[in-house]
Amino acid sequence: MIALLTDFGVDDIYVGAMKAAIVDRAPNVPIVDITHAIPQHDIASGSFALASALPYLPEGCVVVAVVDPGVGSDRARLAVSFQSRIVVAPDNGLLTDLTWRYPASDIDVYAIDDAAWAASRPTSATFEGRDVFAPTAAALATGTPLASIGRRLHGGVELLARRQGLHRPMVSGSAAIGHIRHIDHFGNIVTDLRPGILEAADEFAVSFEGARTLTLPFVRTYSDVEVGRLCLLTGSFGYIEIACRNAGASALFPRLRLESPISLKPIGA
Amino acid sequence: MIALLTDFGVDDIYVGAMKAAIVDRAPNVPIVDITHAIPQHDIASGSFALASALPYLPEGCVVVAVVDPGVGSDRARLAVSFQSRIVVAPDNGLLTDLTWRYPASDIDVYAIDDAAWAASRPTSATFEGRDVFAPTAAALATGTPLASIGRRLHGGVELLARRQGLHRPMVSGSAAIGHIRHIDHFGNIVTDLRPGILEAADEFAVSFEGARTLTLPFVRTYSDVEVGRLCLLTGSFGYIEIACRNAGASALFPRLRLESPISLKPIGA
Amino acid sequence: MIALLTDFGVDDIYVGAMKAAIVDRAPNVPIVDITHAIPQHDIASGSFALASALPYLPEGCVVVAVVDPGVGSDRARLAVSFQSRIVVAPDNGLLTDLTWRYPASDIDVYAIDDAAWAASRPTSATFEGRDVFAPTAAALATGTPLASIGRRLHGGVELLARRQGLHRPMVSGSAAIGHIRHIDHFGNIVTDLRPGILEAADEFAVSFEGARTLTLPFVRTYSDVEVGRLCLLTGSFGYIEIACRNAGASALFPRLRLESPISLKPIGA
Repeated sequence: MIALLTDFGVDDIYVGAMKAAIVDRAPNVPIVDITHAIPQHDIASGSFALASALPYLPEGCVVVAVVDPGVGSDRARLAVSFQSRIVVAPDNGLLTDLTWRYPASDIDVYAIDDAAWAASRPTSATFEGRDVFAPTAAALATGTPLASIGRRLHGGVELLARRQGLHRPMVSGSAAIGHIRHIDHFGNIVTDLRPGILEAADEFAVSFEGARTLTLPFVRTYSDVEVGRLCLLTGSFGYIEIACRNAGASALFPRLRLESPISLKPIGA
Repeated sequence: MIALLTDFGVDDIYVGAMKAAIVDRAPNVPIVDITHAIPQHDIASGSFALASALPYLPEGCVVVAVVDPGVGSDRARLAVSFQSRIVVAPDNGLLTDLTWRYPASDIDVYAIDDAAWAASRPTSATFEGRDVFAPTAAALATGTPLASIGRRLHGGVELLARRQGLHRPMVSGSAAIGHIRHIDHFGNIVTDLRPGILEAADEFAVSFEGARTLTLPFVRTYSDVEVGRLCLLTGSFGYIEIACRNAGASALFPRLRLESPISLKPIGA
Repeated sequence: MIALLTDFGVDDIYVGAMKAAIVDRAPNVPIVDITHAIPQHDIASGSFALASALPYLPEGCVVVAVVDPGVGSDRARLAVSFQSRIVVAPDNGLLTDLTWRYPASDIDVYAIDDAAWAASRPTSATFEGRDVFAPTAAALATGTPLASIGRRLHGGVELLARRQGLHRPMVSGSAAIGHIRHIDHFGNIVTDLRPGILEAADEFAVSFEGARTLTLPFVRTYSDVEVGRLCLLTGSFGYIEIACRNAGASALFPRLRLESPISLKPIGA
């Protein structure tokens, strides 16, 4: 399977052209859209969506991840394996959150050689998603080994993680400090905190810019609280989120900003 | 073929994750998006879209329908056959319009057993579309018989239909009374009235909240009236709609509300 | 491969129903969405998107192109081959830009016979995308020869090109005069000028309605200019565009109108 994650939107012909480049080379490989709604050029947002999705994709899957404001410049083009999945992407920080989710020993980083994607159709200097990354993914998904599409970069993981101004979630005393990374279609406020970082507790004091400190129960699912009540829970991709049963939590916090810090401190622990 | 109908939108990674769960289990089964634009938690809207689409899907098709505000609660998970197509969905009213479109003798209702969707990847309490309904659909689409994924519910059809506050279209004297159920991308105003319910006539008196009574011709296609003129016709999924040639009919009725009643009475019949 | 280009949007069930009609007849043929975001009934916009995409689709590909305000009327239904790709579409001007991109000797025009798309499911008078064009494309993609789905129209190319109020790009003195045809997701302003029409120069005087005359460098890729600077380049589908590195060029020109003329004149040539 080849999965796609971009900031292209779906109104232009860009996603279709990228898929056509794949189908041309790998007609029997299913293609799945992860999302094309990453805000334009927003590498941090793309990085978080990619780290959220990857563990839920089948083993052997190849992901084409393109949020690429530097297209056509000399930044490297990467093919990186995370356990048994591969991501092809520009080397611009798009893989940072993944380096936090997978142990370094499970990550192998390769720089893609030009020879890996020799295209038969006219190419361009402005669309490497179609002209470089899609053909490379098609090659990988049809049996070309990772080692033969480029040169392995030692110390590659450090390389990936340092490219972006993001800070890794951390623990300070009994509090876990992460960041607000995504507002979903239902208004859930998704953080980059994973449940393992928290001390066990039924309730947490939650602080972030744009809200007074909240006391929220940590529950299993939306229907464990009354309609209209805020709660914390582990969302369906393994990150902690603030939710509001049958309503959008984000609408309650008009001053909330993506990328801003959030702190969760257990109460009575 | 597996078809998908949800309220997830396409901006998040949710649809992609659901498809990945299908491809992982049924890599050779084509997946088709019916729509992911059902308004969040709007079961009535999802029910109408599902009843519109199903008769136009191939026989043997399995539909995953997820509009599921009660996810994680103990509401049942259903697999229901309508003639030779199957829908997997939460038991919350999402199948109501289908029970009106198909005779009860063509409907079989099953409650899905947990064993039907044993997942290999980490699951969650908040995303049964990915963790329960997608694996069940993949099993059904690859040959698992309906009878072996759960327990048959007798009287199931009544069960389905009673869950929702919707009223079935009816006849009152010479008038047919239904509801406005959808405004499409072109501004067509789609009702839940099917042409068989109407007396034959060339013109109808049409009444609904937000408009004075209109006298509209019943035509075969948009180009049977002049540009800018309103008409009635049977839309492409078998429901009667109000249309305006080369323009959006809905823009003429700013006070129009979804779910509100609409009456069609033949003139001169 | 079958590719789809329509003005249906993706919120309704229309695209899904069209795909279901294809899968029913050609279950092993990959389907790729080019775009469904052509503005409703905007034939000129659809024509440009189609001409942009087609050369980048695999040989043997069949495209279903539906922007069809006259659906159900007696306008012809066409199947047209451009080199080794085929487009099925209503005869309303949607193929005009393609006739400018391909030599007439590479274009064959057929009118589709009713027999080509005998449907097994209920049809309608309002959705030929599902009922006529999708089945025809499925037949073509599974081996039915073009010559057996209809009757060849001699002089077909002239027929295609004359249907629409568009003017072909031209040369006047040293200037090339085309039209602004598309604003993409990144704010790039895309014209219908192809690079071969221009005299070689490093800089051009660029004039269009809604802007004073601009002096812009012609570069290879976005990162060849400083952040925030405007430039000209050949976009990834072979048409010249005005771009602004890491920002949307279109936002700088609020009075810019699609379809309006644009002139590029080399400086110092």
